[in-house]
Amino acid sequence: MGDEQGRLLAQRRRPSRLSQHPERDLAALADEARALCAEAGLAFSALRGVGVSAPGPLDPASGVLLHPPNLPGWREVPVRRLLGDRLGLPVHVENDANAAPLAEWRFGAGRGFQHVVYLTMSTGVGAGLVLGGRLYTGKQGMAGEVGHAPVEWDGEPCACGGRGCLEAYVGGAAWTRRLAGATPAGSRVAVLAGAPERARPEHVVEAAREGDAFALSELGRYNDYLARGITTLVFALAPEIVILGTIPSAAGEALCLAPVRAQVLSRVWPLLGRELRIVASGLGPQLPYLAGLCVAIEAAAASGP
Amino acid sequence: MGDEQGRLLAQRRRPSRLSQHPERDLAALADEARALCAEAGLAFSALRGVGVSAPGPLDPASGVLLHPPNLPGWREVPVRRLLGDRLGLPVHVENDANAAPLAEWRFGAGRGFQHVVYLTMSTGVGAGLVLGGRLYTGKQGMAGEVGHAPVEWDGEPCACGGRGCLEAYVGGAAWTRRLAGATPAGSRVAVLAGAPERARPEHVVEAAREGDAFALSELGRYNDYLARGITTLVFALAPEIVILGTIPSAAGEALCLAPVRAQVLSRVWPLLGRELRIVASGLGPQLPYLAGLCVAIEAAAASGP
Repeated sequence: MGDEQGRLLAQRRRPSRLSQHPERDLAALADEARALCAEAGLAFSALRGVGVSAPGPLDPASGVLLHPPNLPGWREVPVRRLLGDRLGLPVHVENDANAAPLAEWRFGAGRGFQHVVYLTMSTGVGAGLVLGGRLYTGKQGMAGEVGHAPVEWDGEPCACGGRGCLEAYVGGAAWTRRLAGATPAGSRVAVLAGAPERARPEHVVEAAREGDAFALSELGRYNDYLARGITTLVFALAPEIVILGTIPSAAGEALCLAPVRAQVLSRVWPLLGRELRIVASGLGPQLPYLAGLCVAIEAAAASGP
Repeated sequence: MGDEQGRLLAQRRRPSRLSQHPERDLAALADEARALCAEAGLAFSALRGVGVSAPGPLDPASGVLLHPPNLPGWREVPVRRLLGDRLGLPVHVENDANAAPLAEWRFGAGRGFQHVVYLTMSTGVGAGLVLGGRLYTGKQGMAGEVGHAPVEWDGEPCACGGRGCLEAYVGGAAWTRRLAGATPAGSRVAVLAGAPERARPEHVVEAAREGDAFALSELGRYNDYLARGITTLVFALAPEIVILGTIPSAAGEALCLAPVRAQVLSRVWPLLGRELRIVASGLGPQLPYLAGLCVAIEAAAASGP
């Protein structure tokens, strides 16, 4: 729970504990929200609305989750109606790929900018776009699938069925698959992971910090492809700031941000690169809470005072 | 001259006849506009404003042309002030790369859509973006330089200094340079051009229509690279419609639009491709007039009734 200035007043993180009965799960969630409110000494009656940042695909207009691949058993779940009935409050549902950039724009690294590209960089890769001071989501909310724009025509196969997608090079899931086969048994990455086939991006980042040659070469490849994707977005959209999500934020300035920035600036025109910020996410672990809060704030702003 | 419904009431096309004295050239232009008005039987007093669609770089806020490479000798010319003083009307100046998509959106192929990508496809390549029902121009008006987003990393050198830019493959100027060296002496392209080194894109289009093998292979290459550029834009922006400018419009459905459409649809996700329109410019030779008219209309709308 939080206020319009992005101050979090109470928060709780818990496993999803999904049953095959979404209506029961959502009722339990609503009851927990009431209890959290009471524990935090907040008046439930002071709440103005509820924001839900959920995995897509979903329909923000009706507040229905369609068939999110990461919520097995949930199909066409009317989250807005179910939560709204239980809580007696207006409920707004937004794709988490859009809610995260909203939070970074309102309260994080993007604050004060008009043209913001936020790149989700974890298992998958996608962009959240704030263009001209408002969220841009395109036809049927599908904009920002830049993880599947090609960075090598006919390159590596991607889980989406395409080839050479940005995500096939810098998506966490794709990178993990690659590492399982590519990690040398003697490398620091393999030692940290316990075995080469268990190597993951976080082991690469950690081993790179220790100077491991294989890890540094893997991270160099990651940075190169990420810079390609950013270069295209800068030419197309002329953003003021590009905010990078999980993996680059974890890798940090020396191992990722600085080399990516240098490569992008060497490729884009000076006028486009001048004052262009390429930075890590500013919200870190608070991002999920603030994403939900932002959905509620945006909805309240859209419906008037 | 035209009205808010995009009806042209009078029009004139003439060579620029630039002297080294921009203020004199603009005074002559203003006098001609008055004369055109009289000849067409229109009351000058009925005019509400003047729209100028000019080559960039320029500053729309001040109405100053900075240093357009295609207007030699013109540097920092205050077009708004000079024309405004002479005509006694509000004058608005916009980059032609933005004015053309505005015209296609208001009165051409993009009418009624909210998310429109217009690709200038003549000497150079650039995008005009109407996103969420309004023109998007990015930081300092520099968005849409997709002609310089790479379609082959480290590919062909581009006039901009970069490598592998879309424009290095499908820009008219780059294609003309390539044709000068690549056109076989016996090809229909060379015959139409008079000599291989005088071959231009329009000769390729004409020869392809007659079935010339070299021309068809050149056009196939053009279509492939154009489809790459469009594919990236569709993933990033989820437009409803992509409108293609000069060269694709001249080449037409069978030689360009249909193959480009097929290639894009084979690469983008079904949900992004469903109902995606990839079409030729709808305004043809009226585009320059309507571009200027649109600049005047947008400015009038922004300043209120």
